[in-house]
Amino acid sequence: MNQRNLEHGKKPSKIRELFEIAKKRKEKYGIDNVYDFSIGNPSIPAPEIVYETLRDLIDKSSNEEVHFYTSNPGDLSVRNAIAEYLSKTYHTELKGDYIFMTCAAAAALSISFNALLEKGDEVIVFAPFFPEYSILIEHTDAKTVIVKPDSKTFLPDFDDFKNKISPKTRIVVINSPSNPTGVVYKEDTLIKISEILKEKEKEFNHPIYLIADDPYRELIYDDIDFPIVTRYYDNSLICYSFSKSVSLPGARIGYIAINPKAKDVEDIFFAICGASRALGYVCAPSLYQFMIPHILGKTSDLSIYKKNRDLLYSELKNIGYEMIYPDGAFYIFMKALEDDAEKFALNALDYNLVIVPSDSFGYKGYVRIAYCVKEEIINNSIPSFKKLYERYQK
Amino acid sequence: MNQRNLEHGKKPSKIRELFEIAKKRKEKYGIDNVYDFSIGNPSIPAPEIVYETLRDLIDKSSNEEVHFYTSNPGDLSVRNAIAEYLSKTYHTELKGDYIFMTCAAAAALSISFNALLEKGDEVIVFAPFFPEYSILIEHTDAKTVIVKPDSKTFLPDFDDFKNKISPKTRIVVINSPSNPTGVVYKEDTLIKISEILKEKEKEFNHPIYLIADDPYRELIYDDIDFPIVTRYYDNSLICYSFSKSVSLPGARIGYIAINPKAKDVEDIFFAICGASRALGYVCAPSLYQFMIPHILGKTSDLSIYKKNRDLLYSELKNIGYEMIYPDGAFYIFMKALEDDAEKFALNALDYNLVIVPSDSFGYKGYVRIAYCVKEEIINNSIPSFKKLYERYQK
Repeated sequence: MNQRNLEHGKKPSKIRELFEIAKKRKEKYGIDNVYDFSIGNPSIPAPEIVYETLRDLIDKSSNEEVHFYTSNPGDLSVRNAIAEYLSKTYHTELKGDYIFMTCAAAAALSISFNALLEKGDEVIVFAPFFPEYSILIEHTDAKTVIVKPDSKTFLPDFDDFKNKISPKTRIVVINSPSNPTGVVYKEDTLIKISEILKEKEKEFNHPIYLIADDPYRELIYDDIDFPIVTRYYDNSLICYSFSKSVSLPGARIGYIAINPKAKDVEDIFFAICGASRALGYVCAPSLYQFMIPHILGKTSDLSIYKKNRDLLYSELKNIGYEMIYPDGAFYIFMKALEDDAEKFALNALDYNLVIVPSDSFGYKGYVRIAYCVKEEIINNSIPSFKKLYERYQK
Repeated sequence: MNQRNLEHGKKPSKIRELFEIAKKRKEKYGIDNVYDFSIGNPSIPAPEIVYETLRDLIDKSSNEEVHFYTSNPGDLSVRNAIAEYLSKTYHTELKGDYIFMTCAAAAALSISFNALLEKGDEVIVFAPFFPEYSILIEHTDAKTVIVKPDSKTFLPDFDDFKNKISPKTRIVVINSPSNPTGVVYKEDTLIKISEILKEKEKEFNHPIYLIADDPYRELIYDDIDFPIVTRYYDNSLICYSFSKSVSLPGARIGYIAINPKAKDVEDIFFAICGASRALGYVCAPSLYQFMIPHILGKTSDLSIYKKNRDLLYSELKNIGYEMIYPDGAFYIFMKALEDDAEKFALNALDYNLVIVPSDSFGYKGYVRIAYCVKEEIINNSIPSFKKLYERYQK
């Protein structure tokens, strides 16, 4: 048996573990009596256009394409539509030829890592970061190198970043809006990261790829223009998922978009095709591929998340909790009331609050609260958050 | 860049290469003037119950589950339904707890290999075999060991099989009905394989897993009871896809079923969960998962394939070609008219016949003809097959 994968299976992610705990508690206490902030499962329905399009595609059941294999990188008309939409919306230049359809963002990252990494390479991630990154990186026998955040802004600590880039650095991953902090990288941050990387590329004389894990791109609640990575840095890739923006995590649909300006872009595309084959991804689900051109630019009613954020942030602040202000995504990153966030999250369970300790995100002393839940769950959870706070004041 | 995956991407599978050639020829000569026998894309629609169920699930759009993440192994009610159906239909004993939902059979195999294999292990496959097996196996740094067939029956050469099992053999893969030969392993073959493996397990004192790649299980046209692997051998796994039986290759839905009697079945299940995580498979598409309980035991109208097989087999026989009689799947494995099957397939293109040379299936001198096409394509292709035959008589 493969010992590494056995370990990954025996020790599921903290998020999934708490998701399952919450599930069991809901069966015991009733679904409305457990305040499940564990998982990023969108709480709002997909926009109506999604259902309309799916119905329409299924009714045209004579249209074989909708249920049949597409080419391995996906249907070219779909890829062209995505390239056109992104280029227009984010003022960048992308091409359908360099877009590869995937089973959402996890597959996009997995395929990209397997395409670009050789054993012993290093991948830089910025703490706190989505814990699955290290599992995916480890699978390629590359090494995850963690850069610490500025403890006030939760943007990267740029000195630490510079120091951690080595001749072995092959990939840098950014994730904005961030899971778990909700922090958004504004243009100046993108420029700074790019400048540092360009310098290091020159120094080490080989490309360093900047991968933007972008599933939360549309989930920005304040007046910030989203700076897309391909505008700022040539050797870049976008990994995207429709899971969050249109509330379809179960659909497993997303893509990799390679910057056409990337060095050896043809080879990157080939390596992505090859990695996808070697991992057993034949093509992304066809029905959902053909849905995409009809729903580009559409989102679920994201104002609900904004309302949730405003409500939960101000309530928690009132109680006395410390948090980073989250511009986007649907997470609040809150300081635990003791050094051991795992213990803090365990204590929270006493009040049926299911929150995820930050340890597995590569950062200690915080918890992640996923507020993609019904508003009443937030309202009803406040007394529990109060009790939890009071417990620590004694 | 990862050189191995770059190579896989630059050199797509012969099947996919010919599929793309056929696509281009169709644009040039018209869709009905190219006899595209390249790919196993089902040519018959899904059964009506598939469309009904999908429509029904989508209309219940308030039902969040249909579009949201399921647990990593899939929804338990779906897995239980599959276990119950298989146990009843094939007189075996399976459990939902040990069923893992996947993005169809390629993912099922990829995840199983990554769960069970360590670097340096050996996997036995029986030639001729689906070429993607070796790509998936190579990804785990294990080695593909090829057992030759009996040149008359195209069942395994059992002496060669015995000789090729080494202390490093960890997995044996069977595929019945076979892609590319259409041969079906009857009960006596399953018993023989199991006996040999049980003996070798004793000799080497460790489990050897028998994986049945079963997507063509329902596509058997003659009076043969399908012998399911779990009835004959304890350390066995079934990898299944709904791509062929209900004509949904684009849906990417299937499963791994582990024999509950397998040694360390719990650990196998955990290793499968872990491998799935490490490869970036979060969960199988939810909509299609929830479709499964409604369509179990249903198939497309497979009598059309039987008709195609009977027609093509007798026509080719009449012309003078030599073939193995295919009991199942939708492939005819035909002897090329020269030693070099690649050249033969290239010559066939002159008559707009798109057929796949057997070399990449680990066997020389044959071509695979995928007869999952419209009947008129078969009828119209016969003069071309005649011309091709005559060309070799000169």
